[in-house]
Amino acid sequence: MLTPHRAPGGFPVVGIIGGGQLARMCAGPAAELGLTVSVLAEDTHSSAALVFPSSPVGEHTDVETVRDFARECDVVTFDHEHVPAHVLQALVDDGVILHPAPAALRHAQDKIVMREALTAAGMPCPRWTAASTVEEVTAFAEEVGWPVVAKTPRGGYDGKGVLVADRVEDLDDWLATAAGRGEPLLLEEAVPFVRELAVLLARSPSGQAAAWPVVETVQTDGICTEVIAPAPGLSEEAARTATLVGLDIAATVDVTGVMAVELFELADGSVLVNELAMRPHNSGHWSMDGAVTGQFEQHLRAVLDLPLGSPRPRAPWTVMANVLGGEHTDLYPTYRHLMARDPELKVHLYGKGVRPGRKIGHVNVCGDDLAGLRERAQHAADYIRGVISQ
Amino acid sequence: MLTPHRAPGGFPVVGIIGGGQLARMCAGPAAELGLTVSVLAEDTHSSAALVFPSSPVGEHTDVETVRDFARECDVVTFDHEHVPAHVLQALVDDGVILHPAPAALRHAQDKIVMREALTAAGMPCPRWTAASTVEEVTAFAEEVGWPVVAKTPRGGYDGKGVLVADRVEDLDDWLATAAGRGEPLLLEEAVPFVRELAVLLARSPSGQAAAWPVVETVQTDGICTEVIAPAPGLSEEAARTATLVGLDIAATVDVTGVMAVELFELADGSVLVNELAMRPHNSGHWSMDGAVTGQFEQHLRAVLDLPLGSPRPRAPWTVMANVLGGEHTDLYPTYRHLMARDPELKVHLYGKGVRPGRKIGHVNVCGDDLAGLRERAQHAADYIRGVISQ
Repeated sequence: MLTPHRAPGGFPVVGIIGGGQLARMCAGPAAELGLTVSVLAEDTHSSAALVFPSSPVGEHTDVETVRDFARECDVVTFDHEHVPAHVLQALVDDGVILHPAPAALRHAQDKIVMREALTAAGMPCPRWTAASTVEEVTAFAEEVGWPVVAKTPRGGYDGKGVLVADRVEDLDDWLATAAGRGEPLLLEEAVPFVRELAVLLARSPSGQAAAWPVVETVQTDGICTEVIAPAPGLSEEAARTATLVGLDIAATVDVTGVMAVELFELADGSVLVNELAMRPHNSGHWSMDGAVTGQFEQHLRAVLDLPLGSPRPRAPWTVMANVLGGEHTDLYPTYRHLMARDPELKVHLYGKGVRPGRKIGHVNVCGDDLAGLRERAQHAADYIRGVISQ
Repeated sequence: MLTPHRAPGGFPVVGIIGGGQLARMCAGPAAELGLTVSVLAEDTHSSAALVFPSSPVGEHTDVETVRDFARECDVVTFDHEHVPAHVLQALVDDGVILHPAPAALRHAQDKIVMREALTAAGMPCPRWTAASTVEEVTAFAEEVGWPVVAKTPRGGYDGKGVLVADRVEDLDDWLATAAGRGEPLLLEEAVPFVRELAVLLARSPSGQAAAWPVVETVQTDGICTEVIAPAPGLSEEAARTATLVGLDIAATVDVTGVMAVELFELADGSVLVNELAMRPHNSGHWSMDGAVTGQFEQHLRAVLDLPLGSPRPRAPWTVMANVLGGEHTDLYPTYRHLMARDPELKVHLYGKGVRPGRKIGHVNVCGDDLAGLRERAQHAADYIRGVISQ
């Protein structure tokens, strides 16, 4: 592979496996800090390949491709969690510096591994089990009651790989598929949550950690559509508890880089851990405009073991709304109306083709008036995708 | 030349002639907005060539090179003001959309053209003349008194091309050089200013304009070393007057894109125009972290004739300090100390090799305590360049 150009002055090359929008959004901070980012991209027109000069195309599942890529990088991190264990092991054997390390990353790759580790560490989880048979499903449902939430341990995202089952027959196909893969399903009780929260933090190899304020996330059909930072009405004590859960998990699993912990908030104010992601995360996109240090800058700093930046919010409220693919395929013409209507709107599009429901961008707005910000963000996202016309 | 990859959805390609740091700093905003930037770079390792996938190498003085480059772009703008008139004319003849247009740009390319236009429009200027002979110099000095400030009309920057002459003999060499070029010198009275200010604004082809708050600029040996936004102690009326001077000039010369107007502030609070720049400018680097819309995003919006973003400051004060080349050539190792000392510091380095006095980066800090911010910014800039050790 071609050697990425690096800036003179001892500046490193950060390799990112995967050319999606999370890699892409490192472009601004990397240029500012003088860092070179090289991405192993799926395609020459991948989201990140459009913005980085060094973006070789190759499969993240092919050992030799990934080894060749990593050889040109000083540290390697990830746009997604789908790099197989044997590929990661080959990199470790080559002496590649990986953040997060494979032993940490597996908690984000396999939800059963995550539940086992968190339960062992005393972290608050929904009741759960690993089930491979109808009998095991039935026994678990008798304990926690129907419905139960079934998850494929590996590979799910944005609501994919999650099924809410009202009776055991709903899981017949999933059990058969799981048996074919030789792995069990993860079953969890259906938590009667009042809303969803997320703790986003970064942790460096030296062990320094910094958490952004706890946010509220709003999901529609299993996909995050809105994030409010900080979570409205969350007591200081509840925020501290949630943040400590995040920091404890980070230390327990020894994560490096940015990690998101998705939480259920219950009626009594307590929280249960829903999911983990070990990379910049949708719940942190608000920080690009709403915090002194955005999550993409922080991730670069963390994986390079640089001191972390301040996660302090820059406004009382920041609202992020995701732009999902909709009616419009010509996105650029929407800019004229949007920018004229709202000169403070921050638009982030990912250079991706439009497919229904696909995450193609997001918008951020910051200010004092939460209700107004929510309206403005939602309007902008809806207008770009074409579900409203003015 | 290779066709730059553009994002699907009707997104344009913005061509920038020149691969310096001003082009480079468009990388973040361009990626966020989904725009493709293509730079005509001096070298494969130019500041901007390190961050943009499309960065063909070629001379900005070669007509065919520039025509080939422009053919792949939807609009063309500039990293510097040095593209010759005949090259610009060839682009106009090809139907290329140039912002600023050549008729505007000449006011930033030739300081005598600028003085003529501003004087004709009634803008406040120092007394000035164009002089080619000892007699003309003497006559002007008798009118305004010694010293006089001599400027080469074209090609100067960062104090280069400026000479403060105490007597006519100081200008013998300059007059001879100017005669050899077949152009006069610009002479200006030495203005007894109390400080320097700058008005930064953007103006779109549709005529919309937006100005950032008036800033104070601090020069050391003719090079800008610090910018304070907004200018401390500037009365609301003086700020409005200065802003109106900037907006009037923008309309008079029909600029498009970002323009900086450097001003002298006199003891009575009035201002005189010092210089113009028709591109993002050092006096606006603070806006990258200190304003809702930074100057690089705004320049892209302006040259694309998109509605302009809000120039509202995001903190009571933002201080920018330039990093000039000094003792350190290994810049990256300075990050560990800097980031640990000041987690709110925003570092911007340009990927350039270190040469003494060369602008290689800048830092921004935002907050309430102006004296503290100035100390923090200056410390960081000094530490990176190696003139202090802790």
